[in-house]
Amino acid sequence: MASTISPAAAAAALASIATPTTLVGQHQLYTRIRLATPADVPHIHKLIYQMAVFQNETHLFTATESSLATTLFNSPPFQSFTVFILEVSSNPFKNIHSPAFLPIERTVLVDHVAADPEAETFKSGVVNENDDDVTVAGFVLFVPSYTTFAGKPGFHVEDLLVRECYRRKGFGKMLLSAVAEQAVKMGFKRVEWSVLEWNVNAIKFYEEMGAKVLTEWRVCRLTGDALEAYGDANY
Amino acid sequence: MASTISPAAAAAALASIATPTTLVGQHQLYTRIRLATPADVPHIHKLIYQMAVFQNETHLFTATESSLATTLFNSPPFQSFTVFILEVSSNPFKNIHSPAFLPIERTVLVDHVAADPEAETFKSGVVNENDDDVTVAGFVLFVPSYTTFAGKPGFHVEDLLVRECYRRKGFGKMLLSAVAEQAVKMGFKRVEWSVLEWNVNAIKFYEEMGAKVLTEWRVCRLTGDALEAYGDANY
Repeated sequence: MASTISPAAAAAALASIATPTTLVGQHQLYTRIRLATPADVPHIHKLIYQMAVFQNETHLFTATESSLATTLFNSPPFQSFTVFILEVSSNPFKNIHSPAFLPIERTVLVDHVAADPEAETFKSGVVNENDDDVTVAGFVLFVPSYTTFAGKPGFHVEDLLVRECYRRKGFGKMLLSAVAEQAVKMGFKRVEWSVLEWNVNAIKFYEEMGAKVLTEWRVCRLTGDALEAYGDANY
Repeated sequence: MASTISPAAAAAALASIATPTTLVGQHQLYTRIRLATPADVPHIHKLIYQMAVFQNETHLFTATESSLATTLFNSPPFQSFTVFILEVSSNPFKNIHSPAFLPIERTVLVDHVAADPEAETFKSGVVNENDDDVTVAGFVLFVPSYTTFAGKPGFHVEDLLVRECYRRKGFGKMLLSAVAEQAVKMGFKRVEWSVLEWNVNAIKFYEEMGAKVLTEWRVCRLTGDALEAYGDANY
């Protein structure tokens, strides 16, 4: 079949170089990934709780805003615990000052923007008071790891969450890609994370991103009283 | 049956308060766990290679003494990558200055001290030149992790190795316990590591130490070209 390009389509194609083409029923959504600041702690706290709900582990949730605030921001970004915040807005973002990490901005076309039942709770604007339309949609928390065989650092992704009404729009990939991009920038040789074996959608998604699921390895965990017992030097 | 205590046994029991009782055929071995220094890099490099051999992954071994030296000692101990060195000696250790971590010393009784075919290669004495009888027997490399549900840090143990001729003497437990003890001291809530599922001896050993093996979780790993692809911001 011969392909024909209508003048309207050609104009649209040219226009798409500057801005994405919006099809009927599609919406433009501005997205930004930036470093978290202590002002984000209330949102981070609620996002972690939502993750505990998703994993049926709310009984393990003891984090407080205070425990997060006192532990997350003690080292320069990427040297220890680091949090990226994903924000969305229907308007372009104002610039923010962030010398340690240039925020990643993308304009995405989404077929449908579901009403955000928690829009008020997750209203951002913590960085720029004029950004009154900015909503926190997700986060990723990661920390340096070490690849002994390569003698090089890597990143271990501890948690990644995109809020329910913003899922299936590529935002999870955007967050994980931001960590991978940062790893490459820093000459790191590995990005690792854990996934529940029953979460087949997540596994498919990670494999599509180029990750390998290591079937032979198991995680060992020492916590609670079993860990505290080692506080006594006479164990 | 009435119990009787012979004068010789009573004397031995009293003596054991000061020094362990040595049975016929047993040997005293002095052990010490201390923080690694840059001078340990050649030994760390060789130990990591032995680990690659054990895991049948020498094809992944690209670490050099230089890559280890430039990446392992850039942060204060316990804030980022941290290495404990296990040393053994047939003589008591001389004191070393180590304000960040008071070395852990134990005198152990071993039934048999096998000849160490690599004694010369792993001769320590890097801390104190008078310690000419000190041999590096193993190491553990660990790094802070983050327990989001608790809002607290933890440790992730990246690698642990006891050299072949020093195995089955409790030294692996000693190294892992030192990490756990440090975690408790710092108010950390978790120590985690990975184990190969076929390494049933290791799993049994870890469970005896109080660890739980998480059967549901799988490790995802992004490395090599798949990772490097994210270095291009247009992924």
